[in-house]
Amino acid sequence: MKFNNINVRISSTATIGQNVKIGDDSVILDNVVIGDDSIICNNCVIGEPTNDYYYDENYINPKTIIGAGAMVRSHSIIYAGCVIGDNFSTGHRVTIREKMEIGNNCRVGTLCDLQGHSVMGDYCWLHSNVHIGQKSKIGNYVFIYPYTVFTNDPHPPSNICIGPQVDDYSQIAVGVILLPGVKIGKHVLIGAHSVVGKDVADYQLVVGNPAKPLKDVRELIAKDTGVSHYPWPYHFSRGMPWQEEGYEKWKSKN
Amino acid sequence: MKFNNINVRISSTATIGQNVKIGDDSVILDNVVIGDDSIICNNCVIGEPTNDYYYDENYINPKTIIGAGAMVRSHSIIYAGCVIGDNFSTGHRVTIREKMEIGNNCRVGTLCDLQGHSVMGDYCWLHSNVHIGQKSKIGNYVFIYPYTVFTNDPHPPSNICIGPQVDDYSQIAVGVILLPGVKIGKHVLIGAHSVVGKDVADYQLVVGNPAKPLKDVRELIAKDTGVSHYPWPYHFSRGMPWQEEGYEKWKSKN
Amino acid sequence: MKFNNINVRISSTATIGQNVKIGDDSVILDNVVIGDDSIICNNCVIGEPTNDYYYDENYINPKTIIGAGAMVRSHSIIYAGCVIGDNFSTGHRVTIREKMEIGNNCRVGTLCDLQGHSVMGDYCWLHSNVHIGQKSKIGNYVFIYPYTVFTNDPHPPSNICIGPQVDDYSQIAVGVILLPGVKIGKHVLIGAHSVVGKDVADYQLVVGNPAKPLKDVRELIAKDTGVSHYPWPYHFSRGMPWQEEGYEKWKSKN
Repeated sequence: MKFNNINVRISSTATIGQNVKIGDDSVILDNVVIGDDSIICNNCVIGEPTNDYYYDENYINPKTIIGAGAMVRSHSIIYAGCVIGDNFSTGHRVTIREKMEIGNNCRVGTLCDLQGHSVMGDYCWLHSNVHIGQKSKIGNYVFIYPYTVFTNDPHPPSNICIGPQVDDYSQIAVGVILLPGVKIGKHVLIGAHSVVGKDVADYQLVVGNPAKPLKDVRELIAKDTGVSHYPWPYHFSRGMPWQEEGYEKWKSKN
Repeated sequence: MKFNNINVRISSTATIGQNVKIGDDSVILDNVVIGDDSIICNNCVIGEPTNDYYYDENYINPKTIIGAGAMVRSHSIIYAGCVIGDNFSTGHRVTIREKMEIGNNCRVGTLCDLQGHSVMGDYCWLHSNVHIGQKSKIGNYVFIYPYTVFTNDPHPPSNICIGPQVDDYSQIAVGVILLPGVKIGKHVLIGAHSVVGKDVADYQLVVGNPAKPLKDVRELIAKDTGVSHYPWPYHFSRGMPWQEEGYEKWKSKN
Repeated sequence: MKFNNINVRISSTATIGQNVKIGDDSVILDNVVIGDDSIICNNCVIGEPTNDYYYDENYINPKTIIGAGAMVRSHSIIYAGCVIGDNFSTGHRVTIREKMEIGNNCRVGTLCDLQGHSVMGDYCWLHSNVHIGQKSKIGNYVFIYPYTVFTNDPHPPSNICIGPQVDDYSQIAVGVILLPGVKIGKHVLIGAHSVVGKDVADYQLVVGNPAKPLKDVRELIAKDTGVSHYPWPYHFSRGMPWQEEGYEKWKSKN
């Protein structure tokens, strides 16, 4: 139904793995490598050239790598020079600019705008409409919810660019702004609509504008269950590497 | 100018009404039904298959229904399994996922992201860039302004999904976050940039983070006019069913 | 690599300047004028007809003008009736509705949604995902950061439409809401996540919800440098007309 080989254009310098499907009206540009068993849906551009392409006659498209088992939904644009691991999946209309390094098993939701020049580890889930400014650093098992923004210019406009850093297992709720250069520890929970301008220690719940530490997430009693749901890996495993055996057992081996 | 029958692909199992225009580069997939006098602009995908399609060999695209008189602007994606009433209109680049039920005379603005599995009544207007999470319930005559988010996970990440509910005639201003499971009454006005975590009674104006009731909307005196503009149906009728005879008369009959 | 003349459709009434590149799958509609040395990337629609087109048999597409040296990135939609100066550049998936007047040397980022019927001067930079409601007025050298919204309806829903005004050199940080009709002076700095409902005098830093004046930007000492970075033109010149000679010298002549 969707893969009819209509208007598909694949550069002769692209390397397409085994059992890859490319959707109608999609374009795979120079020096793109796509791993086995991947699906690139319709109307995507993979290997979008960087700005130099338009002005430099000798431009060569940087190598773009997408690992095995990818599912890139329609109308997404991934720039040349991105390196993305296995089992990557996206929503629709995702934009990922050059020099974005993404680990394995990551998900990036509809309308996300990753400005490139940043690093994201494994098993990160970005929901819809997340904006990651340049020079950001995101660890592993980080979840980021819609309309959250990573900023990087401390005195706008300037030529300084220092992105936020978020460490493993942290949760950044909806509509949050991380100010330039903030460092968020491990297992942090940032409440909806917070503006975070100061570093946050491990296991803190921070909320508000400006965001302030409220309590340790392990002491956070949920109204509906009467227990703390944090650290969340003990309570949520879908799609995570501890899905089979549980976090405790998995952690003892990792 | 716009409807040249170029690269239009319509499934043989789709049912297209009388006097329907389909824009160039648009795709109508299996089991889609489009009502009479509808316009589907260019570069749209109607009946986008759900995730199962990619993995299930026996996948059959769920029926998608768009009523009569629709105007779907360009680059929009409507998933299979949506049921949408008459006189539906969208902006550009709208994404509507599976199992979204939408009544008659609704408008959904540019870049809106409706995650599906939700219900919306009649005469609802969503302006640009509204995000409706799964399991949301929206009544009739509800207006939602840009960058508003309906959330649904009380302990992110979890497998719990309880969307917000918004009753008839309510107004949700720009940049609002509705937290999981909140219930908003009728004729409510939620101020810009509020975060709503508690249920809101009928006719309340609520503002802030966390949002608190400020006053009854009927007591809200506008600086420019010296009167309250709420309940708004007495002051605004464009496109509403009481446009001809006024809200009072219309209401007495409905 | 990108300009292969595939599926390019150019109206016979369009006027295309010297040395213009039009990307694959792009459409240039009636009465569009594109200046010399411009690049319109792939999958763009330039001269998108206004609503009347769908209902008026005698519809004539209003003239659309894009100046010389434009760089319109892929999947952007610019409506008929826009008048845009020289050296215009956009990100991807930009939407610009009818009757938007934009000066020279402006940049509009990925996913921006300009609702038209508004004016923007020269050298304005809108980063990603900025929403400009109708009847807005933006001066020169104004920078607007992601997820900022210009609103225009004081009693939603109403038929009143009074947009915000922003004067020269002002900086509007990320996630800001400007309420209907507010007037922002020159050299203003609006902090991240502010909601601005009252007019702001020249050189003020305002922050919060509701936004309040905090201090004069010239007294704002940066932690990292120990000096104030404002007025910013003394500290930032990339892409600005004072790039060669510095702001002071340039200003003495302008």
